[in-house]
Amino acid sequence: MRKGIAEERDLVNKLDRLGFAVLRAPASGSRTKLDRPDIIAGRVGLHLALEVKSTHQKTLYVKKESIHQLMRFAEKFGAKGLLAIKFKHQCPDWILLDPSLLTPTEKGYKINLKSAIKTGIGLEALVTKKITDYS
Amino acid sequence: MRKGIAEERDLVNKLDRLGFAVLRAPASGSRTKLDRPDIIAGRVGLHLALEVKSTHQKTLYVKKESIHQLMRFAEKFGAKGLLAIKFKHQCPDWILLDPSLLTPTEKGYKINLKSAIKTGIGLEALVTKKITDYS
Repeated sequence: MRKGIAEERDLVNKLDRLGFAVLRAPASGSRTKLDRPDIIAGRVGLHLALEVKSTHQKTLYVKKESIHQLMRFAEKFGAKGLLAIKFKHQCPDWILLDPSLLTPTEKGYKINLKSAIKTGIGLEALVTKKITDYS
Repeated sequence: MRKGIAEERDLVNKLDRLGFAVLRAPASGSRTKLDRPDIIAGRVGLHLALEVKSTHQKTLYVKKESIHQLMRFAEKFGAKGLLAIKFKHQCPDWILLDPSLLTPTEKGYKINLKSAIKTGIGLEALVTKKITDYS
Protein backbone atom coordinates (compact mmCIF):
# COMPACT_ATOMS: atom_id res chain seq x y z
CA MET A 1 0.00 0.00 0.00
CA ARG A 2 1.29 3.42 -0.98
CA LYS A 3 2.53 5.68 1.78
CA GLY A 4 -0.04 8.25 2.74
CA ILE A 5 -2.94 6.41 1.11
CA ALA A 6 -5.25 7.32 4.01
CA GLU A 7 -4.44 10.99 3.49
CA GLU A 8 -5.11 10.62 -0.19
CA ARG A 9 -8.55 9.13 0.44
CA ASP A 10 -9.33 12.02 2.77
CA LEU A 11 -8.37 14.47 0.04
CA VAL A 12 -10.44 12.61 -2.57
CA ASN A 13 -13.51 12.72 -0.34
CA LYS A 14 -13.11 16.42 0.37
CA LEU A 15 -12.71 17.26 -3.31
CA ASP A 16 -15.81 15.20 -4.05
CA ARG A 17 -17.80 17.18 -1.51
CA LEU A 18 -16.60 20.40 -3.15
CA GLY A 19 -18.20 19.25 -6.39
CA PHE A 20 -15.19 17.75 -8.15
CA ALA A 21 -15.19 14.46 -10.03
CA VAL A 22 -12.03 12.73 -8.85
CA LEU A 23 -9.79 9.89 -10.01
CA ARG A 24 -6.89 8.49 -7.96
CA ALA A 25 -3.91 6.88 -9.67
CA PRO A 26 -3.34 3.16 -9.05
CA ALA A 27 -1.30 2.40 -5.92
CA SER A 28 1.29 0.45 -7.87
CA GLY A 29 2.93 2.67 -10.38
CA SER A 30 5.82 0.48 -11.41
CA ARG A 31 4.30 -0.90 -14.57
CA THR A 32 4.26 2.33 -16.47
CA LYS A 33 6.82 4.99 -17.17
CA LEU A 34 4.24 7.54 -18.20
CA ASP A 35 4.07 10.73 -16.18
CA ARG A 36 1.11 10.84 -13.87
CA PRO A 37 -0.18 12.70 -10.85
CA ASP A 38 -1.58 11.09 -7.70
CA ILE A 39 -5.02 12.56 -8.31
CA ILE A 40 -6.95 14.23 -11.11
CA ALA A 41 -9.94 16.32 -10.13
CA GLY A 42 -12.28 18.19 -12.39
CA ARG A 43 -15.28 20.45 -12.38
CA VAL A 44 -16.54 22.18 -15.49
CA GLY A 45 -13.98 24.92 -16.14
CA LEU A 46 -11.26 23.73 -13.76
CA HIS A 47 -9.11 20.62 -14.00
CA LEU A 48 -6.43 19.83 -11.44
CA ALA A 49 -3.49 17.43 -11.47
CA LEU A 50 -2.44 16.92 -7.86
CA GLU A 51 0.71 15.47 -6.34
CA VAL A 52 -0.01 14.52 -2.74
CA LYS A 53 2.70 15.05 -0.11
CA SER A 54 2.60 14.73 3.63
CA THR A 55 5.19 15.20 6.35
CA HIS A 56 5.55 15.19 10.11
CA GLN A 57 8.34 17.75 9.83
CA LYS A 58 8.07 21.50 9.64
CA THR A 59 9.69 21.54 6.23
CA LEU A 60 8.57 19.50 3.24
CA TYR A 61 11.24 18.32 0.79
CA VAL A 62 10.18 17.23 -2.68
CA LYS A 63 12.31 15.52 -5.31
CA LYS A 64 12.92 17.40 -8.52
CA GLU A 65 11.51 14.68 -10.77
CA SER A 66 8.32 14.47 -8.72
CA ILE A 67 7.57 18.10 -9.55
CA HIS A 68 8.77 17.99 -13.12
CA GLN A 69 6.65 14.98 -14.08
CA LEU A 70 3.62 16.61 -12.45
CA MET A 71 4.06 19.76 -14.48
CA ARG A 72 4.66 17.83 -17.70
CA PHE A 73 1.46 15.88 -17.11
CA ALA A 74 -0.54 18.99 -16.22
CA GLU A 75 0.57 20.88 -19.30
CA LYS A 76 -0.12 17.93 -21.59
CA PHE A 77 -3.52 17.21 -20.02
CA GLY A 78 -4.63 20.81 -19.87
CA ALA A 79 -4.86 21.02 -16.09
CA LYS A 80 -3.47 23.12 -13.29
CA GLY A 81 -0.65 21.23 -11.58
CA LEU A 82 -0.62 21.67 -7.80
CA LEU A 83 0.97 20.09 -4.76
CA ALA A 84 -1.55 19.03 -2.11
CA ILE A 85 0.35 19.16 1.16
CA LYS A 86 -0.56 17.84 4.60
CA PHE A 87 1.66 18.94 7.48
CA LYS A 88 0.59 16.19 9.87
CA HIS A 89 -0.29 17.09 13.46
CA GLN A 90 0.61 20.69 12.68
CA CYS A 91 -2.03 21.95 10.30
CA PRO A 92 -5.42 20.25 10.07
CA ASP A 93 -6.14 21.35 6.52
CA TRP A 94 -4.77 20.55 3.12
CA ILE A 95 -2.64 23.26 1.57
CA LEU A 96 -2.61 23.56 -2.20
CA LEU A 97 0.55 25.03 -3.59
CA ASP A 98 1.68 26.08 -7.03
CA PRO A 99 5.09 24.37 -7.47
CA SER A 100 6.57 27.66 -8.68
CA LEU A 101 6.34 28.83 -5.06
CA LEU A 102 8.74 26.12 -3.81
CA THR A 103 12.32 27.00 -2.92
CA PRO A 104 14.92 25.15 -5.01
CA THR A 105 17.46 22.98 -3.19
CA GLU A 106 20.34 20.92 -4.57
CA LYS A 107 18.23 17.80 -5.14
CA GLY A 108 14.82 19.29 -5.56
CA TYR A 109 12.59 21.72 -3.74
CA LYS A 110 11.40 22.57 -0.26
CA ILE A 111 8.86 24.65 1.60
CA ASN A 112 8.22 25.14 5.28
CA LEU A 113 4.85 25.19 7.02
CA LYS A 114 4.87 28.96 7.57
CA SER A 115 5.55 29.77 3.92
CA ALA A 116 3.09 27.14 2.73
CA ILE A 117 0.30 28.65 4.83
CA LYS A 118 1.20 32.11 3.57
CA THR A 119 1.46 31.34 -0.14
CA GLY A 120 -0.78 28.30 -0.56
CA ILE A 121 -4.56 28.10 -0.69
CA GLY A 122 -7.09 25.92 1.11
CA LEU A 123 -9.38 23.47 -0.68
CA GLU A 124 -12.38 25.74 -0.31
CA ALA A 125 -10.59 28.43 -2.33
CA LEU A 126 -10.98 26.12 -5.34
CA VAL A 127 -14.65 26.94 -5.40
CA THR A 128 -14.71 30.39 -3.82
CA LYS A 129 -11.86 32.02 -5.75
CA LYS A 130 -11.37 32.34 -9.47
CA ILE A 131 -8.70 29.79 -10.30
CA THR A 132 -7.91 28.89 -13.88
CA ASP A 133 -6.52 25.73 -15.42
CA TYR A 134 -3.08 27.06 -16.21
CA SER A 135 -0.41 27.94 -13.73
CA MET B 1 -6.35 -8.24 -11.52
CA ARG B 2 -9.16 -6.52 -13.35
CA LYS B 3 -10.49 -8.26 -16.43
CA GLY B 4 -9.16 -6.76 -19.59
CA ILE B 5 -6.25 -4.99 -17.92
CA ALA B 6 -3.95 -5.83 -20.83
CA GLU B 7 -6.41 -4.21 -23.24
CA GLU B 8 -6.56 -1.18 -21.00
CA ARG B 9 -2.79 -0.79 -21.03
CA ASP B 10 -2.83 -1.02 -24.82
CA LEU B 11 -5.41 1.76 -24.94
CA VAL B 12 -3.44 3.92 -22.50
CA ASN B 13 -0.29 3.59 -24.60
CA LYS B 14 -2.11 4.44 -27.82
CA LEU B 15 -3.73 7.52 -26.28
CA ASP B 16 -0.32 8.60 -24.98
CA ARG B 17 1.13 8.33 -28.48
CA LEU B 18 -1.73 10.49 -29.77
CA GLY B 19 -0.62 13.24 -27.39
CA PHE B 20 -2.99 12.63 -24.47
CA ALA B 21 -1.97 12.68 -20.83
CA VAL B 22 -3.65 9.58 -19.39
CA LEU B 23 -4.60 8.26 -15.95
CA ARG B 24 -5.98 4.76 -15.31
CA ALA B 25 -8.25 4.08 -12.37
CA PRO B 26 -6.93 1.73 -9.65
CA ALA B 27 -7.57 -1.96 -10.37
CA SER B 28 -9.43 -2.46 -7.11
CA GLY B 29 -12.44 -0.25 -7.04
CA SER B 30 -14.25 -1.69 -4.06
CA ARG B 31 -13.06 0.84 -1.52
CA THR B 32 -14.92 3.78 -2.92
CA LYS B 33 -18.47 4.35 -3.99
CA LEU B 34 -17.64 7.41 -6.01
CA ASP B 35 -18.42 7.30 -9.71
CA ARG B 36 -15.35 6.86 -11.83
CA PRO B 37 -14.35 5.86 -15.33
CA ASP B 38 -11.63 3.33 -16.22
CA ILE B 39 -9.48 5.98 -17.86
CA ILE B 40 -9.24 9.74 -18.03
CA ALA B 41 -7.36 11.21 -20.96
CA GLY B 42 -6.73 14.85 -21.70
CA ARG B 43 -5.14 17.15 -24.21
CA VAL B 44 -5.58 20.89 -24.07
CA GLY B 45 -9.15 21.46 -25.22
CA LEU B 46 -10.40 17.86 -25.00
CA HIS B 47 -10.93 15.75 -21.90
CA LEU B 48 -12.26 12.20 -22.11
CA ALA B 49 -13.75 9.88 -19.49
CA LEU B 50 -13.54 6.36 -20.91
CA GLU B 51 -15.25 3.14 -19.88
CA VAL B 52 -13.33 0.23 -21.36
CA LYS B 53 -15.25 -2.81 -22.60
CA SER B 54 -14.11 -5.83 -24.53
CA THR B 55 -15.89 -8.89 -25.82
CA HIS B 56 -15.27 -12.04 -27.87
CA GLN B 57 -18.88 -11.93 -29.03
CA LYS B 58 -20.37 -10.05 -31.94
CA THR B 59 -22.62 -8.07 -29.62
CA LEU B 60 -21.47 -6.11 -26.59
CA TYR B 61 -23.83 -5.89 -23.63
CA VAL B 62 -23.30 -3.18 -21.04
CA LYS B 63 -25.02 -2.83 -17.68
CA LYS B 64 -27.16 0.25 -17.17
CA GLU B 65 -25.28 1.46 -14.08
CA SER B 66 -21.94 1.19 -15.87
CA ILE B 67 -23.10 3.75 -18.43
CA HIS B 68 -24.96 5.96 -16.01
CA GLN B 69 -22.03 6.34 -13.60
CA LEU B 70 -19.74 7.12 -16.56
CA MET B 71 -22.02 9.88 -17.76
CA ARG B 72 -22.45 11.31 -14.25
CA PHE B 73 -18.67 11.42 -13.83
CA ALA B 74 -18.12 12.96 -17.27
CA GLU B 75 -20.68 15.69 -16.71
CA LYS B 76 -19.32 16.53 -13.26
CA PHE B 77 -15.70 16.49 -14.43
CA GLY B 78 -16.29 18.42 -17.61
CA ALA B 79 -15.28 15.66 -19.99
CA LYS B 80 -16.75 13.77 -22.89
CA GLY B 81 -17.91 10.34 -21.72
CA LEU B 82 -17.21 7.58 -24.21
CA LEU B 83 -17.14 3.79 -24.34
CA ALA B 84 -13.85 2.38 -25.63
CA ILE B 85 -14.75 -0.98 -27.14
CA LYS B 86 -12.54 -3.84 -28.29
CA PHE B 87 -14.25 -6.60 -30.26
CA LYS B 88 -11.51 -9.18 -29.72
CA HIS B 89 -10.28 -11.23 -32.69
CA GLN B 90 -12.85 -9.45 -34.84
CA CYS B 91 -11.71 -5.86 -35.12
CA PRO B 92 -8.08 -4.91 -34.48
CA ASP B 93 -8.82 -1.35 -33.50
CA TRP B 94 -10.47 0.35 -30.58
CA ILE B 95 -13.89 1.80 -31.31
CA LEU B 96 -14.97 4.88 -29.37
CA LEU B 97 -18.69 5.20 -28.97
CA ASP B 98 -20.96 7.85 -27.55
CA PRO B 99 -23.24 5.94 -25.13
CA SER B 100 -26.28 7.64 -26.65
CA LEU B 101 -25.72 5.42 -29.70
CA LEU B 102 -26.28 2.20 -27.71
CA THR B 103 -29.53 0.28 -28.03
CA PRO B 104 -31.47 -0.05 -24.76
CA THR B 105 -32.24 -3.54 -23.48
CA GLU B 106 -34.14 -4.64 -20.39
CA LYS B 107 -31.08 -4.60 -18.13
CA GLY B 108 -28.90 -2.08 -19.89
CA TYR B 109 -27.61 -1.48 -23.37
CA LYS B 110 -26.13 -3.31 -26.32
CA ILE B 111 -24.42 -2.74 -29.63
CA ASN B 112 -23.18 -5.12 -32.28
CA LEU B 113 -19.88 -4.96 -34.12
CA LYS B 114 -21.43 -3.77 -37.37
CA SER B 115 -23.28 -0.86 -35.75
CA ALA B 116 -20.26 0.05 -33.62
CA ILE B 117 -18.02 0.29 -36.68
CA LYS B 118 -20.65 2.37 -38.47
CA THR B 119 -21.44 4.83 -35.68
CA GLY B 120 -18.24 4.84 -33.59
CA ILE B 121 -14.93 6.52 -34.28
CA GLY B 122 -11.34 5.29 -34.20
CA LEU B 123 -8.72 6.66 -31.83
CA GLU B 124 -7.06 8.70 -34.54
CA ALA B 125 -10.28 10.66 -35.06
CA LEU B 126 -9.66 12.19 -31.62
CA VAL B 127 -6.87 14.23 -33.13
CA THR B 128 -7.97 14.51 -36.76
CA LYS B 129 -11.61 15.45 -36.26
CA LYS B 130 -13.08 18.29 -34.25
CA ILE B 131 -14.47 16.65 -31.12
CA THR B 132 -15.61 18.70 -28.18
CA ASP B 133 -15.78 17.91 -24.47
CA TYR B 134 -19.53 17.62 -24.23
CA SER B 135 -21.62 14.85 -25.68
